[in-house]
Amino acid sequence: MSRLKILKNVLDANDTVAAAIRADLSRRGLPCLNFISSPGAGKTALLERLIADLTGELRFGVVEGDVATANDAERIARAGAPVVQVNTEAYGGDCHLNAGVVRAALDELPLDEVDLVVIENVGNLICPCSFDLGEDAKVLLLSVAEGADKPLKYPLSFRSAGAIAITKTDAAPFLGEEPERYAENARAAAPGVPIFQLSAKSGDGVAAFAGWLRALVAAKRTA
Amino acid sequence: MSRLKILKNVLDANDTVAAAIRADLSRRGLPCLNFISSPGAGKTALLERLIADLTGELRFGVVEGDVATANDAERIARAGAPVVQVNTEAYGGDCHLNAGVVRAALDELPLDEVDLVVIENVGNLICPCSFDLGEDAKVLLLSVAEGADKPLKYPLSFRSAGAIAITKTDAAPFLGEEPERYAENARAAAPGVPIFQLSAKSGDGVAAFAGWLRALVAAKRTA
Repeated sequence: MSRLKILKNVLDANDTVAAAIRADLSRRGLPCLNFISSPGAGKTALLERLIADLTGELRFGVVEGDVATANDAERIARAGAPVVQVNTEAYGGDCHLNAGVVRAALDELPLDEVDLVVIENVGNLICPCSFDLGEDAKVLLLSVAEGADKPLKYPLSFRSAGAIAITKTDAAPFLGEEPERYAENARAAAPGVPIFQLSAKSGDGVAAFAGWLRALVAAKRTA
Repeated sequence: MSRLKILKNVLDANDTVAAAIRADLSRRGLPCLNFISSPGAGKTALLERLIADLTGELRFGVVEGDVATANDAERIARAGAPVVQVNTEAYGGDCHLNAGVVRAALDELPLDEVDLVVIENVGNLICPCSFDLGEDAKVLLLSVAEGADKPLKYPLSFRSAGAIAITKTDAAPFLGEEPERYAENARAAAPGVPIFQLSAKSGDGVAAFAGWLRALVAAKRTA
């Protein structure tokens, strides 16, 4: 029982910092998204594509979370956005980001020069969903290489999402997969959550997701 | 600090049960493998293939771990092996199996009628690596849809493996991926760990992995 109590305190502490992040970013009129997926579902690739497609229109600030390496931050920097890499290896190889490290990372970003903040969480479809980072919405990515039953197998994760992206749709024919089956199961697991089918590689469907981002930014500015 | 102490006790308790499982299975001459990977890397598909290819030679007993659904257990049962499904949704949506639930699952398996035990962990490349389940070795699976840098980004996980399987190699050409780059990075992250490149769909490379299993079973019988 005491373990539960103490873990609850840790989560409470996380929530306090997350609430402060949310208040700070709202005051600045900046929406914040928390990208969550299995390893290799294409979080970084989608960000690279969005940064390129929305150049001159929306300026991204990015926090990259990984157990190790700065590979993703290097990719985002090459795409042209300010980025801070967090490596959880430094504190035990954590399986998720927490609000404290995100706060420290945000302090290193030029928040006055961006239109929205995207946090790319550690590749893990389960644990990151339990940690509020002060985001406006979690975006859950699921690649068509993972199997269409994943929304049913990880219902708590999909239910926590504010938007769902079925990714790598260009590879579906080669893999013998049907993106619409993924979307169907995502709808069943998370009723009412907007679902996007897209390929960062071919660009198919990215415009619809970019439209969702634009609306988010506009709503936050007028709030 | 107190959180660390209490979590350490939880891990100690897990290790005590895991040691008892290891002793029990060793007494029976049964090797035990713990399959770990991201969601959708093909743990179940490889098991289905192995059960089919080794019919009449090696009898598998399987423990299936998932947050929700009995999809994988149904697939394994159809393949012809005795199987027990564990759903972690029942205890908070845990991101990994622990030794206690594995002990309970093993008690439901006909251990006198199998030659080896495979535990298919919850789809998660990070957390399951920290929990000893009484296995002889962890087998880490990495699909060529996930990106070749994953062994470098999850070094602690790959370092914990007794064997590594690069999966879905049949899809590599369509995805623009090169399985050998995955193997190179796996070798760098986990020096000395045997690495198999295989496709459960085409069957390529499965025989080499089956050979490794045979050696494991033979070694355990004569131990």
